[in-house]
Amino acid sequence: MSKITTKVAIIGAGVSGLKAAEVLLNEPHSPFQPDDIVIVEAQDRIGGRIKTDTTKSKLGISYDLGAAWFHDTLTNQVLKDAVANNYFDVKNDTYYDDKDIQIYDRNGLIDVSGLKINRVVEDLEKYIELHYHEELDTEDISLQDIVKQFVQQYEFMLTPEQIDYSTRIMRYLELWYGISWDKISGKYSIMDHQGRNLLNKRGYYFIIENLLKLVKDIRILTKQPIVKIDRNNKETSKPICIESSTGLKIYSDYLLVTVPQSILQLPAAHPYGLTWNPPLPKSIQDALSTIHFGALGKVIFEFDDVWWDESQDRFEILADDNQVNLSATITSPPKPFTYPAYIINFASVHNKPSLVILTQSPLTDYLEKNPEQAWNYYKPMLATLAHKGKIPTEPINVITTDWTQNPYIRGAYAAVETGDDPSELIIQLSGEFDGCGLSSSHIRFAGEHTIMDGAGCVHGAYNSGIREAKWILQDVKPRPRL
Amino acid sequence: MSKITTKVAIIGAGVSGLKAAEVLLNEPHSPFQPDDIVIVEAQDRIGGRIKTDTTKSKLGISYDLGAAWFHDTLTNQVLKDAVANNYFDVKNDTYYDDKDIQIYDRNGLIDVSGLKINRVVEDLEKYIELHYHEELDTEDISLQDIVKQFVQQYEFMLTPEQIDYSTRIMRYLELWYGISWDKISGKYSIMDHQGRNLLNKRGYYFIIENLLKLVKDIRILTKQPIVKIDRNNKETSKPICIESSTGLKIYSDYLLVTVPQSILQLPAAHPYGLTWNPPLPKSIQDALSTIHFGALGKVIFEFDDVWWDESQDRFEILADDNQVNLSATITSPPKPFTYPAYIINFASVHNKPSLVILTQSPLTDYLEKNPEQAWNYYKPMLATLAHKGKIPTEPINVITTDWTQNPYIRGAYAAVETGDDPSELIIQLSGEFDGCGLSSSHIRFAGEHTIMDGAGCVHGAYNSGIREAKWILQDVKPRPRL
Repeated sequence: MSKITTKVAIIGAGVSGLKAAEVLLNEPHSPFQPDDIVIVEAQDRIGGRIKTDTTKSKLGISYDLGAAWFHDTLTNQVLKDAVANNYFDVKNDTYYDDKDIQIYDRNGLIDVSGLKINRVVEDLEKYIELHYHEELDTEDISLQDIVKQFVQQYEFMLTPEQIDYSTRIMRYLELWYGISWDKISGKYSIMDHQGRNLLNKRGYYFIIENLLKLVKDIRILTKQPIVKIDRNNKETSKPICIESSTGLKIYSDYLLVTVPQSILQLPAAHPYGLTWNPPLPKSIQDALSTIHFGALGKVIFEFDDVWWDESQDRFEILADDNQVNLSATITSPPKPFTYPAYIINFASVHNKPSLVILTQSPLTDYLEKNPEQAWNYYKPMLATLAHKGKIPTEPINVITTDWTQNPYIRGAYAAVETGDDPSELIIQLSGEFDGCGLSSSHIRFAGEHTIMDGAGCVHGAYNSGIREAKWILQDVKPRPRL
Repeated sequence: MSKITTKVAIIGAGVSGLKAAEVLLNEPHSPFQPDDIVIVEAQDRIGGRIKTDTTKSKLGISYDLGAAWFHDTLTNQVLKDAVANNYFDVKNDTYYDDKDIQIYDRNGLIDVSGLKINRVVEDLEKYIELHYHEELDTEDISLQDIVKQFVQQYEFMLTPEQIDYSTRIMRYLELWYGISWDKISGKYSIMDHQGRNLLNKRGYYFIIENLLKLVKDIRILTKQPIVKIDRNNKETSKPICIESSTGLKIYSDYLLVTVPQSILQLPAAHPYGLTWNPPLPKSIQDALSTIHFGALGKVIFEFDDVWWDESQDRFEILADDNQVNLSATITSPPKPFTYPAYIINFASVHNKPSLVILTQSPLTDYLEKNPEQAWNYYKPMLATLAHKGKIPTEPINVITTDWTQNPYIRGAYAAVETGDDPSELIIQLSGEFDGCGLSSSHIRFAGEHTIMDGAGCVHGAYNSGIREAKWILQDVKPRPRL
């Protein structure tokens, strides 16, 4: 049973943990040497939910199976740093895949512009905003229900086509949150973006590679899933002790916990859960129960040739207006057109015959468990994209993600279900307010689930790592004598 | 010299004054009889900046020379009331003229969608919002300058076409505020709308007609420009006396002033100014100096046939990227493509060959003074709209507005120039906060310039009339004995 003693232990070698280590080490006047920091990682790979795959494609494309976009590009710190440090070149390494999205349903392309559907979608989103803005304690209902409510109230101003299409289009939000719209919180469904979304053509792993270079002298121990966190260690002079499933013990002054929210939400008795000793305070436990974890996945089809409109960036294929229980676990092949498909046209991004489809829970869970079913589900839906008389062909390659099947990740990221409060956990874990978090015990939290700006995104995780490194650097400073 | 004694005097027979009178008279338990209310109007017509002309068209179209749209249609009270009272039928009497706008410049139609220009325009607007959101006291610069600043900062993410077109497109805001972009306050340039804009096909005067029916027993005295307001009248027992240029004196307990902001801003010595006795308090005088008055006008061309794309709702014809002093008074015919044109296609609205063009100051002032120059200015610009080989023809009819030439209106509505504070005057005149307005003297203000939600709009004016009627009804109630 090996033991390590250090100053700062970091659980998780994803972007938040690596960025925190980098700042701890490289900030001017930092008291920390490489030996003072240890990163432990449960998996056999680095990067967490950044995962650029270069092996599975038959077309030579590097696919980001996890995070793929720079969001909020007017204020995105990861993008700013990458540009400032010449890590990469925006014009060659990225692609704005945001040409007006083409909307299809079972019957083909929809004339969104001619029918002024986007104006109704904008009204719908504004209606939701106003509905919850008027009174702060307005009862939350699902996205599906508030969309129905809008239609009831404003039917007199709408055409039948506008009602039909705009309501089904709103399910595009399933592909942001990774859950179906009967679950999505109406109250928190509409996001405010700080700039366009920029697809990282080169693959997001370059961010991880660069961070690894900058922390190359710091120990990173992989395949060490932490199972126990002792907040009041008495075995040594160090106040904190974490223990992995292999029996490794790390004693430290500070601990930064960057495991996914899904891991924090597991009971201690769960094989992949954390045992806290003493247990987490009730305020954090309560906060963990007011937020859910979605499952955004991807299915990628590669073909011999492009048979869809290669000039477009994105397609949304609408689901039928159906009466299915959308969020129930799927146990047998689902009917096509039950869930909408949001598709990135890689023929436009990379000039190669590839379509990247985002999937939502529970479809994600089903397809990640049964990847051989992916083409059956999407085949009739994708057939609607056939362009200028071209005949859809069978894929030469199918790639699916496996986030729901990975016991150390268990899905995608934080998702706000009806009745949830997305800020509660962030307030608790960021420890930015008195009485929140575990600040007195020198245990801190980082990751996409611990931050408001950039929640669920790479830049949110990155900024949370910076925030915690700075907190530790501030805390470790010698106090002036009284 | 005639004298009238009444309980409530209202200056201005526009929508705010008429709506106030209507509520004063018809609110349940109102103590007011028709004889208790007098409305005085400077002009020989009713309606203020609502003016539906049925005489000038050669095509039989009713043109709204003033207000024409229901804005903020998710929350618009005028629309709600009109629908609830069956004044009119949304589907037949209105038209959503909001199909994706077609953008042209000197060289013809621009592929806005293909070049993803709208995404950049969205970013530009978000950038402006973020820029002023970060710190409340960030220095205001003009819309023109902040657009330049955006380009400098984000050039690396933009294509040359995106920079060229998106910056020129932003001048569409000139046709909201009625002033040129070198004057428009960057800080307050981006508006938040509560729903789509709905063009009133039938003509807005039906609102006035309906209000007139509801107040038919109230005296409305036209051609009585008020020149003097005595706030401490001692001649009679009534505390307020207003006097018109014809010598009419009206004594009242309450006074509601709904003259345009442009009239309030005139010095007392001005032939169309108001003399306040005693003068307005400094707080109101100061507030009147922190806001400007724009001049949105219209030029309407009627033709024999449609030679543009009749399937479109709106066109924006971009100005050249020029170095002209845009806001200087125009004294000789301006060069075409100096100011952008925002055009409503009435071939789409009414199925008749007519184009309605919005104009901005100082072009409005020039064209309203020299209407015979309108076709010279717009002819080469409109020629860019020629569709499918059709040849542009000369108009058979030209109609221009005359708001800047009307001494009782003097332009359009409140406009926020660089450095202005749009809320100051509203706070002062709405009298909703202690120490603001003239509330202790029973003199109240209404109109589009006195209200935040719906500022500059019919529904804002209408709501301000309701607000003031309710204030008076509350104030006039007998106090409980102590």
